[in-house]
Amino acid sequence: MTEKKTVKIATIGGGSSYTPELVEGFIKRYQELPLGELWLVDVPEGKEKLEIVGDLAKRMFEKAGLPVEVHLTLNRREALKDADFVTTQFRVGLLDARAKDERIPLKHGVLGQETNGPGGLFKGLRTIPVILDIVKDMEELCPEAWLVNFTNPAGMVTEAVLRHSDFRRVVGLCNVPIGMEMGIAKLLDVEHSRVRIDFAGLNHMVYGLDVYVDGVSVKDRVIELLSDPANTSFVKNVQGQGWEPEFIRSLNALTCAYHNYYYKMPEMVKKTIETAEKEGTRAEVVKRLEDELFELYKDPNLAIKPPQLEKRGGAYYSDAAVRLITSIYTDKGDIQPVNTMNKGAIASIPYESAVEVSCVITKDGPRPITMGDIPVAARGLVQQIKSFERIACEAAVEGSYDKVVLALTINPLVASDKLAKKIVDEMLEAHKAYLPQFFKTKKVAAAKG
Amino acid sequence: MTEKKTVKIATIGGGSSYTPELVEGFIKRYQELPLGELWLVDVPEGKEKLEIVGDLAKRMFEKAGLPVEVHLTLNRREALKDADFVTTQFRVGLLDARAKDERIPLKHGVLGQETNGPGGLFKGLRTIPVILDIVKDMEELCPEAWLVNFTNPAGMVTEAVLRHSDFRRVVGLCNVPIGMEMGIAKLLDVEHSRVRIDFAGLNHMVYGLDVYVDGVSVKDRVIELLSDPANTSFVKNVQGQGWEPEFIRSLNALTCAYHNYYYKMPEMVKKTIETAEKEGTRAEVVKRLEDELFELYKDPNLAIKPPQLEKRGGAYYSDAAVRLITSIYTDKGDIQPVNTMNKGAIASIPYESAVEVSCVITKDGPRPITMGDIPVAARGLVQQIKSFERIACEAAVEGSYDKVVLALTINPLVASDKLAKKIVDEMLEAHKAYLPQFFKTKKVAAAKG
Amino acid sequence: MTEKKTVKIATIGGGSSYTPELVEGFIKRYQELPLGELWLVDVPEGKEKLEIVGDLAKRMFEKAGLPVEVHLTLNRREALKDADFVTTQFRVGLLDARAKDERIPLKHGVLGQETNGPGGLFKGLRTIPVILDIVKDMEELCPEAWLVNFTNPAGMVTEAVLRHSDFRRVVGLCNVPIGMEMGIAKLLDVEHSRVRIDFAGLNHMVYGLDVYVDGVSVKDRVIELLSDPANTSFVKNVQGQGWEPEFIRSLNALTCAYHNYYYKMPEMVKKTIETAEKEGTRAEVVKRLEDELFELYKDPNLAIKPPQLEKRGGAYYSDAAVRLITSIYTDKGDIQPVNTMNKGAIASIPYESAVEVSCVITKDGPRPITMGDIPVAARGLVQQIKSFERIACEAAVEGSYDKVVLALTINPLVASDKLAKKIVDEMLEAHKAYLPQFFKTKKVAAAKG
Amino acid sequence: MTEKKTVKIATIGGGSSYTPELVEGFIKRYQELPLGELWLVDVPEGKEKLEIVGDLAKRMFEKAGLPVEVHLTLNRREALKDADFVTTQFRVGLLDARAKDERIPLKHGVLGQETNGPGGLFKGLRTIPVILDIVKDMEELCPEAWLVNFTNPAGMVTEAVLRHSDFRRVVGLCNVPIGMEMGIAKLLDVEHSRVRIDFAGLNHMVYGLDVYVDGVSVKDRVIELLSDPANTSFVKNVQGQGWEPEFIRSLNALTCAYHNYYYKMPEMVKKTIETAEKEGTRAEVVKRLEDELFELYKDPNLAIKPPQLEKRGGAYYSDAAVRLITSIYTDKGDIQPVNTMNKGAIASIPYESAVEVSCVITKDGPRPITMGDIPVAARGLVQQIKSFERIACEAAVEGSYDKVVLALTINPLVASDKLAKKIVDEMLEAHKAYLPQFFKTKKVAAAKG
Repeated sequence: MTEKKTVKIATIGGGSSYTPELVEGFIKRYQELPLGELWLVDVPEGKEKLEIVGDLAKRMFEKAGLPVEVHLTLNRREALKDADFVTTQFRVGLLDARAKDERIPLKHGVLGQETNGPGGLFKGLRTIPVILDIVKDMEELCPEAWLVNFTNPAGMVTEAVLRHSDFRRVVGLCNVPIGMEMGIAKLLDVEHSRVRIDFAGLNHMVYGLDVYVDGVSVKDRVIELLSDPANTSFVKNVQGQGWEPEFIRSLNALTCAYHNYYYKMPEMVKKTIETAEKEGTRAEVVKRLEDELFELYKDPNLAIKPPQLEKRGGAYYSDAAVRLITSIYTDKGDIQPVNTMNKGAIASIPYESAVEVSCVITKDGPRPITMGDIPVAARGLVQQIKSFERIACEAAVEGSYDKVVLALTINPLVASDKLAKKIVDEMLEAHKAYLPQFFKTKKVAAAKG
Repeated sequence: MTEKKTVKIATIGGGSSYTPELVEGFIKRYQELPLGELWLVDVPEGKEKLEIVGDLAKRMFEKAGLPVEVHLTLNRREALKDADFVTTQFRVGLLDARAKDERIPLKHGVLGQETNGPGGLFKGLRTIPVILDIVKDMEELCPEAWLVNFTNPAGMVTEAVLRHSDFRRVVGLCNVPIGMEMGIAKLLDVEHSRVRIDFAGLNHMVYGLDVYVDGVSVKDRVIELLSDPANTSFVKNVQGQGWEPEFIRSLNALTCAYHNYYYKMPEMVKKTIETAEKEGTRAEVVKRLEDELFELYKDPNLAIKPPQLEKRGGAYYSDAAVRLITSIYTDKGDIQPVNTMNKGAIASIPYESAVEVSCVITKDGPRPITMGDIPVAARGLVQQIKSFERIACEAAVEGSYDKVVLALTINPLVASDKLAKKIVDEMLEAHKAYLPQFFKTKKVAAAKG
Repeated sequence: MTEKKTVKIATIGGGSSYTPELVEGFIKRYQELPLGELWLVDVPEGKEKLEIVGDLAKRMFEKAGLPVEVHLTLNRREALKDADFVTTQFRVGLLDARAKDERIPLKHGVLGQETNGPGGLFKGLRTIPVILDIVKDMEELCPEAWLVNFTNPAGMVTEAVLRHSDFRRVVGLCNVPIGMEMGIAKLLDVEHSRVRIDFAGLNHMVYGLDVYVDGVSVKDRVIELLSDPANTSFVKNVQGQGWEPEFIRSLNALTCAYHNYYYKMPEMVKKTIETAEKEGTRAEVVKRLEDELFELYKDPNLAIKPPQLEKRGGAYYSDAAVRLITSIYTDKGDIQPVNTMNKGAIASIPYESAVEVSCVITKDGPRPITMGDIPVAARGLVQQIKSFERIACEAAVEGSYDKVVLALTINPLVASDKLAKKIVDEMLEAHKAYLPQFFKTKKVAAAKG
Repeated sequence: MTEKKTVKIATIGGGSSYTPELVEGFIKRYQELPLGELWLVDVPEGKEKLEIVGDLAKRMFEKAGLPVEVHLTLNRREALKDADFVTTQFRVGLLDARAKDERIPLKHGVLGQETNGPGGLFKGLRTIPVILDIVKDMEELCPEAWLVNFTNPAGMVTEAVLRHSDFRRVVGLCNVPIGMEMGIAKLLDVEHSRVRIDFAGLNHMVYGLDVYVDGVSVKDRVIELLSDPANTSFVKNVQGQGWEPEFIRSLNALTCAYHNYYYKMPEMVKKTIETAEKEGTRAEVVKRLEDELFELYKDPNLAIKPPQLEKRGGAYYSDAAVRLITSIYTDKGDIQPVNTMNKGAIASIPYESAVEVSCVITKDGPRPITMGDIPVAARGLVQQIKSFERIACEAAVEGSYDKVVLALTINPLVASDKLAKKIVDEMLEAHKAYLPQFFKTKKVAAAKG
């Protein structure tokens, strides 16, 4: 890599509406990261979008005056060949599948959401075989490349690569931690760059063990502010309602927005059902937003990321990805929160499991900062979700119907074997086209019969 | 102890309706355990019952022709002085408190039960200061004695002694494991004595990792039988509904009846509410049973344990206690499931925590058999309940309102900080008389205001 | 196994001089362990001895009036077929190899001994491939049988099976712990059966964490007695010289005789060299003893174990083996110290490694009693020997010359890469005939050149 | 600290010959670290040297044109008051004590050296009570200050603070890691700043798990180079002789110079004895060097660090200290190897123990980078030295003669209880004036009698 003049990046799911943000990130950091070729890959169903967004990408680089070749292809292997970095932002089954992930659980009174509960499970079941397939191609075509995954559920996907392949150059990425930092910056009215959080936990279940401004801990003040019900959580599309002061004070750690699902479970289920009735599920909302975005993207005069994209959610995601790639490429040594193998960084989470943790980013990849113990109060939930993820990974790889039921039963959002089975049966049927591993043998079919 | 001719045992809560079973146990094992003095201790409110049950105990020993002195006293220190064993079966606040533990959560749609959820928490908060007080007396008056606790929540109480005192001669005891063995024996139609289970987990959350008949594993067959919805769980007062075959097969471990609360949560909540409406809560039912029992006990012609006691629930409890005491006294080396310090017996539960595990029983106390890892699927829930117990213990010892709210928020049966606070406030008020540690300072009162 | 009327046992290395003790053990425990067939297996070089000892065995059973068939064979697979237990007591390269293990290191000023240092390493390198071969046969021919290994170095051999095969029905056995118990019994002048020690450590590096008479700890008294230089160590052929009182008091654990090598290293090396000069090495002494024994065994009138065998060393070994087999067969549940997988029984030794630990013996094999932490002072040495064993196992399996040098360098008895290499080169050459794995490829040969 | 204009630093042992290097470091980094006051503290015996070196320091700052106040004092508390950083470089008993640490063991054929074996032990016993006393003062007088210790044995001293005080703002510092980096840089002929090593282990027993140039691993090449006997170890005063290629290849980690003591033990003992005979021990050599240095320092025209200081050994030490202080002060986030609490950074070393590990340096102190497992071959030795350190710390704090004997017995350089006791008795007597904790009570005296 060091001898090469320019960098080759392959983006799987390149036809995504997020791509312009990614491109903007590449433009912004071009001086540090001399991108030579950007390969946008997609599946045949996504060809039209790929072309729209690919053309916009070309216009953006051109307007920026940068000599970046944009390649559009349906041939993944061609894109992977000799890549330096591979980013994954694909969605198996597209937004229609997400809509089902959200709708079906709600019918059973269970939270419908794309990264937690039944929705997260089934998104994982559809995604994991594909990611493992990509990894297999990478081992052959670009073994030295880094895989930067921001396909959700990012924690489960990273776990799957770590436990079910020998490939180790993988990083899972999420915008939740950066969102927490920005939320705290806003709360304290300081610049984002001055805020640093000690992140430790799992993807979408990350805690802030300490928080610093200019390197000095301000945790006590932040916890005090968070005890004031007026100060609510931070990520746009999962708004919290403020914690009870006693709870947050004695938990004594920062939470992320997704913690609402577990520490305000009945309230969140109720709210999600109401919202779905009023506005449709998030997938349905996003679908409308996406249609609008692609209309904009088609405009041949557009050569920047349109501001409307920010409403889409997932802000900073692509920017975080480019920041990460740049730090790896330049061996920068800055601290970023990513999903990587634990190796003891967080006590009481298995050594080999994926965790979301503050890491020093080097050319050799992310190196977790040792966080030690997380609060006693947080250990059980984190283990429970990790167990859920591990069994979900096994289910995905083995095509085991029994394990899907087990995974969902032990998920705190379901907590019932009977209910789990009902939901699993309905969702397996709904996603049949994207879950071939569960429909191979008569035996499985019989077991479900 | 070895030089003494006879054994002195002090039973705190001696006026309990269970005492005749305990006495029956002492009579049955008299040849191995030469009981000299049985001191039944109770609080002033329990004086009448103490006398009724104490007189029955005297008649029972007399009829058996055994020279056992029965002492009835309200002076605990007198009873503890030079005791060889101390058993605890008291109930702070009596059955009225239990009725509140069961009723109040139900109003909020949360399971009301005396060892799980809010009920278990508040029973713990009332009991822990008393048990720590007993332990302090024991350190002074009978430091070589063993404390055999079967006051619920037995796991949390054992945790409190292990974490908040220096006393180590404590064993927590429960009838759930023995009930599981008897259930399996019945299922397989073999004698109980031929069945052995590898128990590992927490009190009221214990798993059977393997099961043997005559030392040969029959786990596969048992799991198969349990996959048949016809074969339901085993402990009398917490009847299960049979597991989904996929769930139990992939969990691949035996469950106890209390697992229904976590793996059939919505169903169990619904059922408990219905039962409470129809028959009253368990405390209310038990109260009627107890009244009948004490009427029987008064009969001066009664000199045996009346068969009606078995309906009371908690069968085998006292028998298990005498079996345990006898094995300690005789250094027997048989295997019994008890609550004791983990020390690595169960991987992924903290070293210093109380676990329920198969132990070899020696004069030096229970020695856990190394169980290694429990199934991945079980690890999270076990950690979550252990975290709940640990924070509850701290709350009880410190009188920390914040920690009570935290403990209940992270309990899977509540999973909401808002709901937790509401229930805590109502229960603190209801149990005020037995929770002095929470009503000491203005600051706490204000915090709750 | 339960349906079979009688038990079939195969003894690899059946021509050993120990066999009469084994036979005596079978006779003594016949009521509990209904032995039907005893297959004594040996290699062609051992045929003569096999016949001598086999004939004696037949006479012994006959005299005892027991219907046990004794089979003598050079065909291991025939012996293994449907066996219930397999015992291994073979010696690759016979006593000549042992003599080299003892002699060569002494030339370099390093302890020469058959289970520690260079001698233990090379005995392991010769033995491990054979034991793994036996295990492979067992998986095919008697997968339900238990392998009871008492071939030294028993800890390393058990480690090899646990780490380099999938076979789990293996137990390593040693007479050191039983010797310690008998030594303590003698020291305290009580019967052996009343003494119990909490054993924890590695084979030939086992500590007694506590010691009980009739279940009551007498550790303080024993440590006090051991602080008296008059009271020395216990195993016959490795006599200690008494510990410095300060050392044993602050170590606060019982040691075994082999600890002398590590806690009296210079003295032991000196003594071993002197003894070798005066009396010859142990192998040379044993060889003379064995010749005498076989002369006795030939006597057609001899039908009991001759008392002279006890001088041979390794007393109780075979008796311990039969005791273990009987407890497994009858699911007895008594406590015996054996080598088995740690699984957390001893904190700070790897989960998957072989440890020597007090176990409850069941039909399902040995179940370690949880010992928790060993003394801080002992942790390093135990880890160091375990690391030595693990690397030795890898060297044996891979035929890696580099790893042999590494293993010996980190062994505390050598502690020099240069010295290690010199000794390794000489010993590899000396044992060439029994170390084919190191003489396969040109590359290895070149590396050594 | 943030509001203060300038930084106050107190240097305990300020009269050391190293101080000019420290001053040079402060001058070099003045732009980043605005030093206002430097307090040089020493004991009455060191008053003369303190004044000589203090005057030189003043001249150096003056020549550099920097407004730094230099205070010379024998009153430690005055110096500590409101300090921002405290550095410790004192030597209890001065070089005379070191000479004894080196000489006495040699008489018994044991390595004499000031940080390993008996010498390291006794230096620790003398130093630990003083450092704990300093820490007590700091808790009162400057609780927010960081203690940067480079008094040897730095690992043991850090362990003592972590285990025997509640003070956590402590960092142990050593020049060995930086020396390894510079050695590798020289070996590869690249600039030092391009080399980064993953350090993991203990002080004076640190391994390099990987090594990078510009972020790219060059470990294989380095190991290959180190297998060439021509390429020897790197720290000036402990020259190695090159590793056997087999050893270093299969260890597969970089070693430090002090590893020679454990992996070339007989050779190093021999060489140390020879050198002591020829040139005197290191203390004796250093004493001559120091005398020369102080003659130079007295020269009122000298206003720079004289180049002769580099011969003194301990090069980069003070520079490393200033680099560390600067990174803490500026929250720099660069990577430096220091001694700090493990917290899981290195698997298989206790959580609470001091380790030497690559850390990210923040205003909140060093944050270890998670290293995971160290090579199997290294685990035992590391544990053994850590156990030695822990028991030495307890001995120092408790004044326990028994534990001194235990610590030395388990040290691999001694490995004999008898020899340990002999050496301990002689060294206790020799250092009596500086070991008051061992000469308090009759009981201890009697025990030694």
